Amino acid sequence: MTALATPRNSTRHVNFAGGPALIPDEVLQEAQESIWNHAGTGVGILETGHRTSAFDLVLEETLRDIRAVGQVPKSHDVLLLPGGAQMQFALLPTNALRPGDRALFIDTGTWSARAYADAARAAALCGAHAECVWSGSDTGYRQLPPAGHAADARVARYLHYCSNNTIEGTHWAAPPACAAPLVCDATSDIFSRPWPMEQHAVIFAGAQKNLGIAGLTLVIIERSFLQSMRDDLPLMMSWRRNAEQGSRLNTPPTFAIYMAGRMAAWILRQGGVAEMAARNARKSAAVYQAIDQSAGFFSGTADVQDRSAVNVSFRCATKELDAAFTAEAAALGMVGLEGHRTSGGIRASMYNALPESAAATLAEFMRQFAARHR
Amino acid sequence: MTALATPRNSTRHVNFAGGPALIPDEVLQEAQESIWNHAGTGVGILETGHRTSAFDLVLEETLRDIRAVGQVPKSHDVLLLPGGAQMQFALLPTNALRPGDRALFIDTGTWSARAYADAARAAALCGAHAECVWSGSDTGYRQLPPAGHAADARVARYLHYCSNNTIEGTHWAAPPACAAPLVCDATSDIFSRPWPMEQHAVIFAGAQKNLGIAGLTLVIIERSFLQSMRDDLPLMMSWRRNAEQGSRLNTPPTFAIYMAGRMAAWILRQGGVAEMAARNARKSAAVYQAIDQSAGFFSGTADVQDRSAVNVSFRCATKELDAAFTAEAAALGMVGLEGHRTSGGIRASMYNALPESAAATLAEFMRQFAARHR
Repeated sequence: MTALATPRNSTRHVNFAGGPALIPDEVLQEAQESIWNHAGTGVGILETGHRTSAFDLVLEETLRDIRAVGQVPKSHDVLLLPGGAQMQFALLPTNALRPGDRALFIDTGTWSARAYADAARAAALCGAHAECVWSGSDTGYRQLPPAGHAADARVARYLHYCSNNTIEGTHWAAPPACAAPLVCDATSDIFSRPWPMEQHAVIFAGAQKNLGIAGLTLVIIERSFLQSMRDDLPLMMSWRRNAEQGSRLNTPPTFAIYMAGRMAAWILRQGGVAEMAARNARKSAAVYQAIDQSAGFFSGTADVQDRSAVNVSFRCATKELDAAFTAEAAALGMVGLEGHRTSGGIRASMYNALPESAAATLAEFMRQFAARHR
Repeated sequence: MTALATPRNSTRHVNFAGGPALIPDEVLQEAQESIWNHAGTGVGILETGHRTSAFDLVLEETLRDIRAVGQVPKSHDVLLLPGGAQMQFALLPTNALRPGDRALFIDTGTWSARAYADAARAAALCGAHAECVWSGSDTGYRQLPPAGHAADARVARYLHYCSNNTIEGTHWAAPPACAAPLVCDATSDIFSRPWPMEQHAVIFAGAQKNLGIAGLTLVIIERSFLQSMRDDLPLMMSWRRNAEQGSRLNTPPTFAIYMAGRMAAWILRQGGVAEMAARNARKSAAVYQAIDQSAGFFSGTADVQDRSAVNVSFRCATKELDAAFTAEAAALGMVGLEGHRTSGGIRASMYNALPESAAATLAEFMRQFAARHR
């Protein structure tokens, strides 16, 4: 069989979307070829069986490269699970909590608040307790707990926090200090900067921002914590059963796993997480500078000391100006700049795949826009 | 930005795999183009946000075409959920069962047995009961319950059956007779033949056989049954919460949804489920004829009256001959003919996308192989 040629020189916009997010051109081109005929097997990657030797290799290389990118310690397993991070908001407490247990939450934004609410539901089903030990909701989530804030961890099963708050545009500079096992939702900053995996019982992240496409969640979990989990759940709800089967308990989301592997390999080719962090710092600094030098035309949603390096959230003085900003930017090929539907405003998400030149172009556009509309 | 040209004239094999399975060339070509620049939006489908107007349209068209293909009655909702069908083995009883409830199972093969085992786990967690009312395991799953067999449905919450047994190669000619609400796992034959949706409380199916790629499950559910489900589960575990949010409670598996839409549209272009059923009947008849006319060289794993129209399972007299068969076939470009890892033997899966010519070629190869190795 042969295929028609596909024109691929059509214009692609610069995509600042919060996720699903930009993927490097060269990774998209690998995917296009693999969809037709994966690695010369004569079978496309979408059609490749999850128990074939071809997919064995995809899974093996993906896990190897994820371990290399994240410097995952030997004490931790890597799981690739279907569904997004919110599926783990439900499954983590369902797996971890036993009657009487306490799970603690630091509420720094929309996603930690939702994780807390879901854990409360899971806890109620099994006679456990979920407890919020700090919340930034009263101050509009502009800031994180002050440095040195120590959560009360008496007999806590774990403490959950969100390392980067996608909507509010804040991030933790280091994990919170806490005696309880740490659980980190790193959906929006996984592999965008070095993060001490070894200090965590669990780090999990939806793949669709820095690690490929929607429909896959990466779970990095300390083996002893995994072994302490419940053993009586239906199979696909059980992290232990999934781990025992090497993330192939059922037919896994094979293409999302393939894409995570191509993204991990791409990060390694670029120089790894340290290089990603350096680029992301420069990209966000360029946009923050445009905010700070706008004499108040733009206002950031996060306090300076807690600013995220991948999600820059800001707004103009009016909703009309926000709308004009995103419309004018889109006309110039810069799309996805609308803030989250729950918050409005403007958000430039600049994950690993966004080129530095795009951030510089955006910053220059911001200066021109402010000058025109001041 | 421009992209390099991709060579797409490389040889593709004929893929008889059980799933993930063959996708039509023209659908793969649509996907290749959409990955680079979806529908002229300037953003690739993998990178398209799940709340954008572009994805609104994808979801709307996918649901519309799935309803048209399956002739889904107005009384039923259509959900597109992450994870495979096995995730629903866990979530369906978790959502449906309350203390004291009974869920009934007809065990006709590997997947109904696993669904029963998972429901037993879910039932134990909430004080309900799962009960197997018929099992074919003693007779090697060669046959289904005799026509007219009526399951005892006294006070049953639902009766679960599997319409097509992928591994054993059997299918139901019509749904079982039962007074309880019917739940059908149609993972391997959804949209491969007409099926009376209106007789069911739930029909669910993993997408990776007849409806695209792994990582997505289609759930067709009677609204009144949905409304009777539990309301206290963590969000992503709740079918009701997912339905209320139109399958976008979280970031859904956007590309798998896109692919389901392209497959549904392709089925409609071909003439719909009736045409698929006619083709599948001819394809399987060709291979069954090669078995039946082999004078015992090949033996089918299913009794004649219960034979599947999409999964033809058979074997030679020895494992060595089975291995020689699949190796010789692969050398001729016919791949994926190995039986399931739990059963061995040979299996020709001939879902919607497999061309009729491929079935004819396989049947001819079977005759030649038998002549050579008799």
